[in-house]
Amino acid sequence: MTGLIDVQNQNDEREVPLAKVGVKGLKYPVRVLDKLKKFQYTTACVDLYANVPQHFKGTHMSRFVEIFHEYRNDLSMNHFLDMLNRIRERLEAASAFGELRFPYFLEKYAPVSTLPSMLSYHCCYRGSVQPELHRFTVEVSVPVTTVCPCSKMISDRGAHNQRGIVTVEVELGPFFWLEDLITLIEQSASSPVYSLLKRSDEKYVTEHAYDNPKFVEDLVRDVYLKIVELKKFPYFSVKAENFESIHNHSVFAYTEFPHGRT
Amino acid sequence: MTGLIDVQNQNDEREVPLAKVGVKGLKYPVRVLDKLKKFQYTTACVDLYANVPQHFKGTHMSRFVEIFHEYRNDLSMNHFLDMLNRIRERLEAASAFGELRFPYFLEKYAPVSTLPSMLSYHCCYRGSVQPELHRFTVEVSVPVTTVCPCSKMISDRGAHNQRGIVTVEVELGPFFWLEDLITLIEQSASSPVYSLLKRSDEKYVTEHAYDNPKFVEDLVRDVYLKIVELKKFPYFSVKAENFESIHNHSVFAYTEFPHGRT
Amino acid sequence: MTGLIDVQNQNDEREVPLAKVGVKGLKYPVRVLDKLKKFQYTTACVDLYANVPQHFKGTHMSRFVEIFHEYRNDLSMNHFLDMLNRIRERLEAASAFGELRFPYFLEKYAPVSTLPSMLSYHCCYRGSVQPELHRFTVEVSVPVTTVCPCSKMISDRGAHNQRGIVTVEVELGPFFWLEDLITLIEQSASSPVYSLLKRSDEKYVTEHAYDNPKFVEDLVRDVYLKIVELKKFPYFSVKAENFESIHNHSVFAYTEFPHGRT
Amino acid sequence: MTGLIDVQNQNDEREVPLAKVGVKGLKYPVRVLDKLKKFQYTTACVDLYANVPQHFKGTHMSRFVEIFHEYRNDLSMNHFLDMLNRIRERLEAASAFGELRFPYFLEKYAPVSTLPSMLSYHCCYRGSVQPELHRFTVEVSVPVTTVCPCSKMISDRGAHNQRGIVTVEVELGPFFWLEDLITLIEQSASSPVYSLLKRSDEKYVTEHAYDNPKFVEDLVRDVYLKIVELKKFPYFSVKAENFESIHNHSVFAYTEFPHGRT
Repeated sequence: MTGLIDVQNQNDEREVPLAKVGVKGLKYPVRVLDKLKKFQYTTACVDLYANVPQHFKGTHMSRFVEIFHEYRNDLSMNHFLDMLNRIRERLEAASAFGELRFPYFLEKYAPVSTLPSMLSYHCCYRGSVQPELHRFTVEVSVPVTTVCPCSKMISDRGAHNQRGIVTVEVELGPFFWLEDLITLIEQSASSPVYSLLKRSDEKYVTEHAYDNPKFVEDLVRDVYLKIVELKKFPYFSVKAENFESIHNHSVFAYTEFPHGRT
Repeated sequence: MTGLIDVQNQNDEREVPLAKVGVKGLKYPVRVLDKLKKFQYTTACVDLYANVPQHFKGTHMSRFVEIFHEYRNDLSMNHFLDMLNRIRERLEAASAFGELRFPYFLEKYAPVSTLPSMLSYHCCYRGSVQPELHRFTVEVSVPVTTVCPCSKMISDRGAHNQRGIVTVEVELGPFFWLEDLITLIEQSASSPVYSLLKRSDEKYVTEHAYDNPKFVEDLVRDVYLKIVELKKFPYFSVKAENFESIHNHSVFAYTEFPHGRT
Repeated sequence: MTGLIDVQNQNDEREVPLAKVGVKGLKYPVRVLDKLKKFQYTTACVDLYANVPQHFKGTHMSRFVEIFHEYRNDLSMNHFLDMLNRIRERLEAASAFGELRFPYFLEKYAPVSTLPSMLSYHCCYRGSVQPELHRFTVEVSVPVTTVCPCSKMISDRGAHNQRGIVTVEVELGPFFWLEDLITLIEQSASSPVYSLLKRSDEKYVTEHAYDNPKFVEDLVRDVYLKIVELKKFPYFSVKAENFESIHNHSVFAYTEFPHGRT
Repeated sequence: MTGLIDVQNQNDEREVPLAKVGVKGLKYPVRVLDKLKKFQYTTACVDLYANVPQHFKGTHMSRFVEIFHEYRNDLSMNHFLDMLNRIRERLEAASAFGELRFPYFLEKYAPVSTLPSMLSYHCCYRGSVQPELHRFTVEVSVPVTTVCPCSKMISDRGAHNQRGIVTVEVELGPFFWLEDLITLIEQSASSPVYSLLKRSDEKYVTEHAYDNPKFVEDLVRDVYLKIVELKKFPYFSVKAENFESIHNHSVFAYTEFPHGRT
């Protein structure tokens, strides 16, 4: 089909360059890497943009989807960047951006009974490519338990505790496995959480968490120090949000390496 | 407005009556009753429907908004029903339905320091009116703390606890105050939650909750029994959801009076 | 692990039976049936409940997850019911309930260019099992385009149109494919929607939709009549919500077969 | 409150400064400025943070809420900054941050019938204060209608159109009214949207929008140019998202002034 006018390709005289133009909230089945099983099928929500220089009226939205469709079954981190480069070339753009959000599932074993169950971790790839410059970060959110050290210290019995979410974003240097980052985060909390716990496990998790109280500030600092030790990532950020059991709001802490970048 | 054809008013020959037709997700500032302050300003999301008999093509959507606009500053429970009746008459419908969802705020005092802060409770009015039949229910969701009795019993120290939400829906008999229902629910939990707690309050809440462990099942049963005692409501339901601190999912319990109605 | 007290199994003297107790919001990778590809991997959010009679203190939450974990890779509609029966037996409950929500993906071909892309449809299984009674419904939500007949009729040019969502819930009689229900719904709208449309397709979709204007009421009635014709389902409901392009709220219509059941 | 140990005030030896620590997702009734009515009551969700230097173990979360509670009834933009300064001083922090999100309501008049109704606009204040540096931005999201110029051009009849959301964030220079920014944005779209339109209004809006087709790119550029003309804001960004009627995803465009800042 050819004779149709290509309105987006027309000249624009307003002299306003657009940093990002594209598709947002596209839902797609995808396949990503998995350390143990090699591949994992999941479902993603994706945003894909390119810049539009001032003299072009617009971009061709359908091309983003066409290209993503081809790449959907092999969205390793490297392949995701390849796709962004392909978008950049196909749209003759100076830069392309992409964000892929998906639940990533790991089989975990209850700490005493060793019974298996799956736990879901929110992940996000964020990439931007320009001719001489690539930036790629991976974010993962890990649900954990936190016991409040203040509550434990000042109370004659008990201590308030709650579910929290630790979110780490790392800028890629050498290859790493999401699994390893998740484990590092879980080990920094009062306790990991599980989808399946028998009574023996519940006793273990309760006592283990009570023995390792952590403020949201502690959690962020301990994760920070463990990631620094890896010496793998040129940039990373750590944030933690506790869904306080004694409030109807959250408490939150954030830091990044190197400090003061954002 | 004059010569324009009224398409919705035309005859329909498909012989399919529609139980509900109207507007959904309309956001509006509203004023509702408040036991202490007489009135409270808040923001609502509202759905308004009427039935459409089989021989009409459609309804006049703008009239729902016109009528709601008039009533927005006095949405007592009674006035809300008046509004539904007005919709029914204006649209010449056999029945009208409405749902009004809004945050309702109460000033609460921390249990030891007595410092004030506001807490938000999700509320919902649900009404349906027909010539001989009215049904009106009010729902309120109350955030609370729950300490797990099993975890407390089997663990040598500590006990997992978390934020929970108790949702009660009552069918209206005699007038009642939301405030009273909220208090009844908070007193049935391991502890109420607060927006502002100093250390002395945190100690009190931690110990009080630890001394009153409740399963999600206990919470539902205790709220149920207290509402039964009031002898006020021809129908009510109670549900509780605990955002488990040791899992990434919730546990849930539900009952209703009289049993087996839904 | 054995010596731990089983608190949930203790006697309860409050005499309040609980209609539903269980786990809510569990996220899991699952595999469901696919008409073309035999199987489809997707991600689900699941609620699983059983009743708790008045003389039991509570239920054993971990067993829901244990059983679901076993069934996750073959969640055909029949297998989902088998799982609910297994839950009922294992928990010695009179009834068990389950709801499984997941995006279901189909490859669609653009109407003129025939280029392929994936579209996501929200699906939900809802089942309840009792010794002599099963009830199982499947719900699917289909995004579509609707052109407003009134706007088209009264305007000298153009017609407002928007994305809408049609949600159909059917109670199972004989086996059917989700794919067939989705196609039936898409054919009832002003036009289906697609993830990928080239200009030739966009022209086709625009004109096709403009030639088939539908009120939200029309959409519900046309879907209703097509499902009645199938003579397959003892019960079904149809609702449609239009995200109006000229308002910031939706319009909505609902009906069910047989009429007046809910 | 006295003898209880102040754990948060203890020394920390991990040498990790935290850029932001505080409360998140606190829901509160607030009062903000209104150009016509002087004040407007609405409901907000607020995040409040301060930095924590490396040698402190943590912050005192309750103080954020205490201070916000005092300021809730007069949250003009200036007063919001005053509050952040107060937080900074009270917590002896180098910097404080705050984000206040709330629906802001305006009464609008239908374009032909002139009937009144309320429309909701999402607003956000974002502030950060340091001893020598303040930064304060206001964000507003405005729902609009957009008609696709390509679809109009290539189709023999009709043109796809949809609801879109334009979000503008401006960094404060001299005082301005949200109302004026909202009007500027609505006038840049194919048409404003309304909560209440009679048929005469619907005809007007349909034709007016059809006569002013806009890509998401056009919308961003036209809003950009109108804000540049005001010469009021040292920095601003403009983004637009169209909830495409022919797709199940959005299209999106973004720019900022001066270019390339983020």
